[in-house]
Amino acid sequence: MAVDVPVALLGHGNVGSAVARLLAEGADDIERATGHRLRVVRALVRDPGREREPLPGEGVLTTDFASIRDDPQIAVVAEVMGGLEPTGEYVLELLRAGKPVVSANKQLVARRGAELFAAASEQGVQLRFEASVCAAIPVIKVLRESLVVTNVHRVLGIVNGTTNFILSQMEQGAGYADALAEAQRLGFAEADPTEDVGGADAAAKMAILATVAFGSRTTLDDVEFDGIEGVTQEHVRAARELEMTVRLVGSATLVDGKLDVRVQPSLVDRHHPLAAVDGPFNAVMLQGDAIREITLEGPGAGGIETASAVVADMISVIGTTGTGFLQNDACWRTLERLPRGELRSPFYFRVEVEDQPGVLAQIALKLAGHGVSIARLVQHQGDGRATLHVVTHEARAGAIEAALNEIAELPETQSPPSAMPVISSRGVTGMGWS
Amino acid sequence: MAVDVPVALLGHGNVGSAVARLLAEGADDIERATGHRLRVVRALVRDPGREREPLPGEGVLTTDFASIRDDPQIAVVAEVMGGLEPTGEYVLELLRAGKPVVSANKQLVARRGAELFAAASEQGVQLRFEASVCAAIPVIKVLRESLVVTNVHRVLGIVNGTTNFILSQMEQGAGYADALAEAQRLGFAEADPTEDVGGADAAAKMAILATVAFGSRTTLDDVEFDGIEGVTQEHVRAARELEMTVRLVGSATLVDGKLDVRVQPSLVDRHHPLAAVDGPFNAVMLQGDAIREITLEGPGAGGIETASAVVADMISVIGTTGTGFLQNDACWRTLERLPRGELRSPFYFRVEVEDQPGVLAQIALKLAGHGVSIARLVQHQGDGRATLHVVTHEARAGAIEAALNEIAELPETQSPPSAMPVISSRGVTGMGWS
Repeated sequence: MAVDVPVALLGHGNVGSAVARLLAEGADDIERATGHRLRVVRALVRDPGREREPLPGEGVLTTDFASIRDDPQIAVVAEVMGGLEPTGEYVLELLRAGKPVVSANKQLVARRGAELFAAASEQGVQLRFEASVCAAIPVIKVLRESLVVTNVHRVLGIVNGTTNFILSQMEQGAGYADALAEAQRLGFAEADPTEDVGGADAAAKMAILATVAFGSRTTLDDVEFDGIEGVTQEHVRAARELEMTVRLVGSATLVDGKLDVRVQPSLVDRHHPLAAVDGPFNAVMLQGDAIREITLEGPGAGGIETASAVVADMISVIGTTGTGFLQNDACWRTLERLPRGELRSPFYFRVEVEDQPGVLAQIALKLAGHGVSIARLVQHQGDGRATLHVVTHEARAGAIEAALNEIAELPETQSPPSAMPVISSRGVTGMGWS
Repeated sequence: MAVDVPVALLGHGNVGSAVARLLAEGADDIERATGHRLRVVRALVRDPGREREPLPGEGVLTTDFASIRDDPQIAVVAEVMGGLEPTGEYVLELLRAGKPVVSANKQLVARRGAELFAAASEQGVQLRFEASVCAAIPVIKVLRESLVVTNVHRVLGIVNGTTNFILSQMEQGAGYADALAEAQRLGFAEADPTEDVGGADAAAKMAILATVAFGSRTTLDDVEFDGIEGVTQEHVRAARELEMTVRLVGSATLVDGKLDVRVQPSLVDRHHPLAAVDGPFNAVMLQGDAIREITLEGPGAGGIETASAVVADMISVIGTTGTGFLQNDACWRTLERLPRGELRSPFYFRVEVEDQPGVLAQIALKLAGHGVSIARLVQHQGDGRATLHVVTHEARAGAIEAALNEIAELPETQSPPSAMPVISSRGVTGMGWS
């Protein structure tokens, strides 16, 4: 005998109506999985008179937030209205009233997470937020429920579909401006693409992922980020020659108990799982002690995809209520930030120099002076100048920066070099798997 | 205040001791996630006198199964002893006694699933089995908890690490026999590799995945499978020329309410996520209405990886007990099998013919007679013969088979052609994502 479970929505727009539809169409599937029938009894909207599809039942639409907060029957509320105000206050009031909340709101979770989780924890209710990162890809659930004992120490992600689409187009020969225009035409990029192409969107998602993975509150301020505006066809071509590909990669890394979170254009080895992520897709790789690495890939945006994650969270809340599961604030420690230059990685850089004997030796000397050795090098010559594309072995970011500053000062250097991290492929032997 | 939760193991070998270790070392992490401390109070073994690492506590090891079954304190039991007998009876008795069970036993779940799930369902307890398929990759949890409302209609998987390692080696130029020997040397293949290279291991895993994805009992008998013994360097080279790669792919597909499950060497488009799965790794792609496709990749074997999945399941049982979640038999319908020849796919085949004018036209005619058209073709000539490598557009498997039978009868044909399915890459436009 199925238990009837009234639920409510904050918002009934693109995502909200998709949630309502999935809940209605999937009611039998949900009952088979949970023994419960979830039924939308109320949805907060600004204008109940607007036409909607599917048509909400009689009396479902309301402009009265209190009628949701104060209804003791409502077992879980999905926040799908977006924005920070009044959304943040609503969510806070719901949690304080002892109602579990599911949110699809990246900005809200990234900016007001601390406050919201504290309120949830105090009341012993859940705040779930799968849809706030990478839409339907269940990375939050996997981190919080499947990888509890695996000491995840690194999260690598392609978490912005717009930039990945643009970079994929550039790989096929398009210039940055044309690729961006195409992304806008297809609806993958906003009219004002700054949040995406500048890296801020990816940084907010990495802050959430780092928080969940490492149990230490991480906000946008903790994330060093850079976008793809500076990526040129020359980078893309050099990457190809080096058997790599340019991707905007977010990384969250735990090094000796210190935390580094960043988003940067990176060169990814062709055999690395992230190199295969094409077009507007997202992927997140989780590296941990007991699992080596698990990669999840899928669409990182879209109304129905986001709604699918919201519904999955609602089901998970219903399926764990009263058990003590995930009813604590997941942030149980405060990690120091790793000093900026301390992160170790292989790096790529390009530098234009006068085509004279001995220049390469000078560059190698400057690198060696900071303990950096060259792993691979491609040189292009013409017009009396040479362009060097260099991949180093693993080195401290600070050492690379110092060496590149010195290389920039060489009289033969024609334009200052800049570095991108390199994401190398795992080797079977390198994984100690034998 | 943490709840003390006694748990038990059946078996304390490679996986069992890793489970005990992860539970002990991860106790704080588990408490933070669930509010519960899981403590191994009993482990069934054959020889309690054997030395073990980590050392089980005083009185934990036992040879008395009833002391586990009849202990009302024990909240969940992990079956990590393997084998079918007496394992199957033990699991059945535990479920009938109302104890939730977690199993890492692929053969047990594939062969006796119907009986075990019926017993679990009758008692309203859970039987979880994440570790039985692809070790630490949480594909079962994602299917059962995250994708409840998404109508998954296709599962594609590289679910056998041994064969994927061998095929990866062959891509680098090794012959089949050498690649197999290397796999054995590294511990990726058994001394008797038949289960793996013949496809039976992958078929058992696909049967479990199909059961979970489609809610209809699927056993090994329902899976048509073929191994990689027939894959040659010529296939690998032809695949490369066609910008594809050879992989042993399992597929479970729902077509008009009918089910097709198979495991076959296949040509995978270089841009498809499964093409990037290298070495002993596994990956599963789930295609559904609301999610388009989600791919999970990771190590598909290993003691600690398997233990990690077992512990995740134990945590999930504790986190959902008493909620009605996943306490039904997931098989709620009986799907007919799709007739063998009805599955539609693009196909690849190679055929050796006499190098005479008009042969290609004849082949094209035979294909056209069955409604099959050619998408791509590579021809190699020499010694008076030609080898054709052909990729067709999507066609019924039965139509391809019939056309190839006729092509085999042509007087110019020197060896009978055989077909492999082709896994094409998604196109952004083809996905209706705009």
